[in-house]
Amino acid sequence: MDTQLSDDKVVLPKEAIEEFYNYGYYGRPRGESLELSLVEAAFLIEREKLDIGVTFKEFFIHSSVIQPYFELKYVVYRDLRERGYYVLPSVTDFRVYPRGGRPGETSASTYVYVLSERIPVPFTDILDKVRIAQNLRKKMMLAIVDEEGDLTYYEVKSATMQGAMSPFNLDLSNADATFLEDRVIVWNEQTSTALYENGFFGKLIDGNRLQISLVECTYLMGKGLRVEDGATGKTFSLKQFTRQAMSIEPDFIVKFRVYEDLREKDLVVKTGFKFGGHFRVYTEVKNLKSMPHSKYLVHSLPEGYIVKLPELSRGIRLAHGVRKHMIFAYSEDHKLHYIDIGRAKP
Amino acid sequence: MDTQLSDDKVVLPKEAIEEFYNYGYYGRPRGESLELSLVEAAFLIEREKLDIGVTFKEFFIHSSVIQPYFELKYVVYRDLRERGYYVLPSVTDFRVYPRGGRPGETSASTYVYVLSERIPVPFTDILDKVRIAQNLRKKMMLAIVDEEGDLTYYEVKSATMQGAMSPFNLDLSNADATFLEDRVIVWNEQTSTALYENGFFGKLIDGNRLQISLVECTYLMGKGLRVEDGATGKTFSLKQFTRQAMSIEPDFIVKFRVYEDLREKDLVVKTGFKFGGHFRVYTEVKNLKSMPHSKYLVHSLPEGYIVKLPELSRGIRLAHGVRKHMIFAYSEDHKLHYIDIGRAKP
Repeated sequence: MDTQLSDDKVVLPKEAIEEFYNYGYYGRPRGESLELSLVEAAFLIEREKLDIGVTFKEFFIHSSVIQPYFELKYVVYRDLRERGYYVLPSVTDFRVYPRGGRPGETSASTYVYVLSERIPVPFTDILDKVRIAQNLRKKMMLAIVDEEGDLTYYEVKSATMQGAMSPFNLDLSNADATFLEDRVIVWNEQTSTALYENGFFGKLIDGNRLQISLVECTYLMGKGLRVEDGATGKTFSLKQFTRQAMSIEPDFIVKFRVYEDLREKDLVVKTGFKFGGHFRVYTEVKNLKSMPHSKYLVHSLPEGYIVKLPELSRGIRLAHGVRKHMIFAYSEDHKLHYIDIGRAKP
Repeated sequence: MDTQLSDDKVVLPKEAIEEFYNYGYYGRPRGESLELSLVEAAFLIEREKLDIGVTFKEFFIHSSVIQPYFELKYVVYRDLRERGYYVLPSVTDFRVYPRGGRPGETSASTYVYVLSERIPVPFTDILDKVRIAQNLRKKMMLAIVDEEGDLTYYEVKSATMQGAMSPFNLDLSNADATFLEDRVIVWNEQTSTALYENGFFGKLIDGNRLQISLVECTYLMGKGLRVEDGATGKTFSLKQFTRQAMSIEPDFIVKFRVYEDLREKDLVVKTGFKFGGHFRVYTEVKNLKSMPHSKYLVHSLPEGYIVKLPELSRGIRLAHGVRKHMIFAYSEDHKLHYIDIGRAKP
């Protein structure tokens, strides 16, 4: 076969259209010739279906030098093809056709974006890919290649967060609360019990006294809670308290914005410390004696966040281990986005 | 009762020895009086067993202002007492007596060190506590208090890492290996198969070609593997290759030292990416068709590492979810320490 190897593609003569495109949807017909991408050509050379006069090793080294992350893309392409899917290049590396579907006849179901475990990714990059896919009504998948060449697929999608709780409605005018070191204690029994039993705030230290966290306290101060400083006896303004909280927890503001937003969406939000994330979130709690399973583990990311993929992998595996959705909350242009990332099979 | 509240203790007259010490091992008898720590006094005031003329709230605020992390210590002390243990102060916050044991008669079984979720801890600090406890043949427990006042206990101990594999013994003189971007490919079938099947190195791309990671490659170069650079065709020296690997992975050296040490201890070491740690480790692999369960998840920490407790919690929960021990490898004075941290009940 009369082939041409240009830097980043292999061009084959007309008869290849019949042999490779019509038969297996390899390459793109360009008039009288067929153009293969480097991964497609490498795959066919490895399978001994294509001979362009170089060994697989020579072709592989050539491609790796020419194309960034060639090897990762090759590993993913090969895996998808071996699973029996038709795979074509796309703006996000690959698009994949559903089983039984064919390029030109049906539309692709999934976009795949290839990442190396080792290379940190700006979260906005993942967000952009989700938008591209959702605009075209496709699934968005990340294919992460680890250092030994093993593959993990994740589906990424927007999440709609909405709970079924009644809006907050408690009289806090009689509350007696003190800030101590890094948390707040509510001393009077009536307020403690109401906050705990109806709003699912805090944790009872004993029958009468409630301990609430910094995010809970800031939220409740917005609803009328008055808080004294244990050290000085003075009452905090909301601004003073927020500043105090920020000095204790550097990412307080990012966390608080998400906490507030989720509470305002009628969800019950509790700490996710034991699960390694910021919050565990319940859609509805009817009473404390039969706490339901929390549906989400939510982790808030600061603006400009760069994702380390081993961390992402860890978070998701953890959430799944306790049957929760892993949701990343990301703020962009003062708007919060909730992104659900979960293990998936292509 | 004639009591004295000094800043950091409460001193009670002689009759309190009978009432509190002989009955429940609260406080320390000092000649004609009994000295209570602030947590002990707060606990007795809350239980309405002790009246020193101030309310629980007043005493609690006083103590919180005087003693750093008073509230955390109170939460842990209260929890241990409620579980029915005798608890005394110790160099690591508390020492706890086994069920059925009594201060003065039996010795304490466990040391407890109280930490706040929010406050990062130097890893050496944890290491020091383990040494103190082990010298005295006690268990060492961390009690971590999260932002809502919930408690998690972890047992920390030294781990002895030893596998049952035969020492490495492969002739690598005919190997043909190329470095491509961020990994290495071994092209010849014989070496690939031997490395894969007998040494459990790398991952086969197809029947003949093996992909190995940067740590594996560096280790094998020490055993005679020759590696070419795909971009230049030149052969790497071990030093050049290590420098290359460091430019790809900033924590390469830390990881590699642990990898090499574990391999030299006759263990099989593979990437732990899917589990969110550096390595999963097998004590013995007899053949690839029946891979056993990997016993350990090992994560290497750089010298001077400061532990963020939510990260610790996440790592441990993950390892347990897949029935592995979570081992942290820490290098100090050029010696590696392996520390096993696991969830525990006091």
